[in-house]
Amino acid sequence: MKLSDIGEFGLIARIAAGTDAGDARLIRGIGDDCAVVETGDPGRALLLTTDTLVEGVHFTRASTSPRLLGRKALAASLSDIAAMGGTPTVFTVSLAAPPALSVAWVDAFYAGLRARARASGAALAGGDTSSAPSRITVSVGLLGECPADEIVYRRGAHPGDGVYVTGRPGESAAGLAILRAEAAGGGDFGEAFSRLKARHLDPEPRLAAGRHLAAHGIASAMIDVSDGILADLGHILEIAKAGAAIQVAALPLSADLQAAAEHMKIDPAGLALTGGEDYELLFTARADLDVAALSKALSLEITRIGRVTPPGTPLRVLDPSGNPRPLSRAGHDHFRSAPRPGSDFSS
Amino acid sequence: MKLSDIGEFGLIARIAAGTDAGDARLIRGIGDDCAVVETGDPGRALLLTTDTLVEGVHFTRASTSPRLLGRKALAASLSDIAAMGGTPTVFTVSLAAPPALSVAWVDAFYAGLRARARASGAALAGGDTSSAPSRITVSVGLLGECPADEIVYRRGAHPGDGVYVTGRPGESAAGLAILRAEAAGGGDFGEAFSRLKARHLDPEPRLAAGRHLAAHGIASAMIDVSDGILADLGHILEIAKAGAAIQVAALPLSADLQAAAEHMKIDPAGLALTGGEDYELLFTARADLDVAALSKALSLEITRIGRVTPPGTPLRVLDPSGNPRPLSRAGHDHFRSAPRPGSDFSS
Repeated sequence: MKLSDIGEFGLIARIAAGTDAGDARLIRGIGDDCAVVETGDPGRALLLTTDTLVEGVHFTRASTSPRLLGRKALAASLSDIAAMGGTPTVFTVSLAAPPALSVAWVDAFYAGLRARARASGAALAGGDTSSAPSRITVSVGLLGECPADEIVYRRGAHPGDGVYVTGRPGESAAGLAILRAEAAGGGDFGEAFSRLKARHLDPEPRLAAGRHLAAHGIASAMIDVSDGILADLGHILEIAKAGAAIQVAALPLSADLQAAAEHMKIDPAGLALTGGEDYELLFTARADLDVAALSKALSLEITRIGRVTPPGTPLRVLDPSGNPRPLSRAGHDHFRSAPRPGSDFSS
Repeated sequence: MKLSDIGEFGLIARIAAGTDAGDARLIRGIGDDCAVVETGDPGRALLLTTDTLVEGVHFTRASTSPRLLGRKALAASLSDIAAMGGTPTVFTVSLAAPPALSVAWVDAFYAGLRARARASGAALAGGDTSSAPSRITVSVGLLGECPADEIVYRRGAHPGDGVYVTGRPGESAAGLAILRAEAAGGGDFGEAFSRLKARHLDPEPRLAAGRHLAAHGIASAMIDVSDGILADLGHILEIAKAGAAIQVAALPLSADLQAAAEHMKIDPAGLALTGGEDYELLFTARADLDVAALSKALSLEITRIGRVTPPGTPLRVLDPSGNPRPLSRAGHDHFRSAPRPGSDFSS
């Protein structure tokens, strides 16, 4: 039996099943965006997350500059801290690289990391370096903190809750589609869609929004959108043993995204529902949340896209007439499908 | 300019130079076995370390079983915690692996990790999984804790201090030499040297010894022997701006190591002085330390192998007549020399 037979989530379940869940230091182990570790001070629970980027799987040197790669390597972990409502503190970087790699590449990579770190308040604490035969592998380990009673988990959604998302999901997937079309020599996109490409190459972790939603007890459950809205909402619903109804018409599709989708003849809603790496926050909260006031407070668009439905109901996507829309395979499996970022199994 | 031009330690210096050392949360950043982070409670400073193993560089699937690889991946990080005098708490594992890898391999790898974790009191908190084109890369991130005023750093050695080592250094290098000779079809080693091979494949981190040396204020400076006694002592001396005199006759060379060295016609003292991956502790302390009592208290051999000499003096290795012995190139550079484990740059 191979990893491709059980798939990424089969593997994660296997690792979790074999793991001692009873350790008193672990407030939360495998199964959320971050692990949560007690510190002896309930006001400062420790958040712990790690993300690995493998050349040829998550990035190519041709399509990503080292500076942007450094920014994104840290952004992915910052987004995990955001999804728990925490504040990032310190991080480590493990770099495995071929000896023939240029020093300029490494300098630019660390410059990108540091710039992203400064903007988030995180500090580089250490790491390790080693040679690799050919491909670059980068692994970021990030710590954060949060008052234990404010942490927002994937669990906690209730039937009747609204389903909300920050920003404009799907833009990263649109940017990736454009980058791939350009790399294949197909399509003249010019500068018009450079913002979408930047959304893929240099995503913005929603730290302030996550912290606000946690500190004010707004979100009942939260996750970051790394594998697409449907896949990531699926994780929340699986724990809640509930369903959801998502309104296609409610999805906050940007004009840029719609124009790019039309240009490439792909479904704009599909980009938002199944596209990955948006690093927006997806959360559940009371259904009558004042999204206008919240958007204003956060200087970030917050949109209600649906609601949580009772146990036994499925996750449905409804068109404007209320008819269920056939779902394409939702989500991404690292050992079964085409390359996309690694999946956290607890952190 | 390539990484092979500046070398591993040039790269680490470059990363450290570009890093903001002034972050108030960092008690110690880049430059020791672990990073040290304040927690608000001086009784529980946080230790942070990471180690990456790359297939084809640090291990081959032919020579290492997945169970032993799991044990060793964690042991390397546990040794970093030991070298600061800390206690390990929780860890993450990032696994990048080809989809065709067998599930049995992954199961055995995690079983090895868990067994090593249980023995050390550390708990698996999470990690991430992703696909890789061909080679397996494993990155372990380990946290530990230690009262801030007990932590032992690489800094702190003083002229006149004795230089001490735990256990029997060189055995790992001897085991590696045997494994390589066997893999090349050269040499009939039989079962006689299986203990040396095990010392390489399944090293024992010296957690209890490190904790004892820290808690009792015995060690003035400490490091784990991952790159060989001379290279690792070099890190301590560089900070202290001091030299040292190491007595070849004092090196605790085991009978097995001497027999293996004779069999392979290599210098047994050279294995101890420049061989890596022993994960023994190398420390400085007052020159009249009662090593017999300490060895008994720790159930682990402690040997005084030399002394720290004044600023301006070199690191010398002296034969029984007191004559300096010519030093072979001490230490290991990841981007310049043959494969050996990655080097920590702060953790």
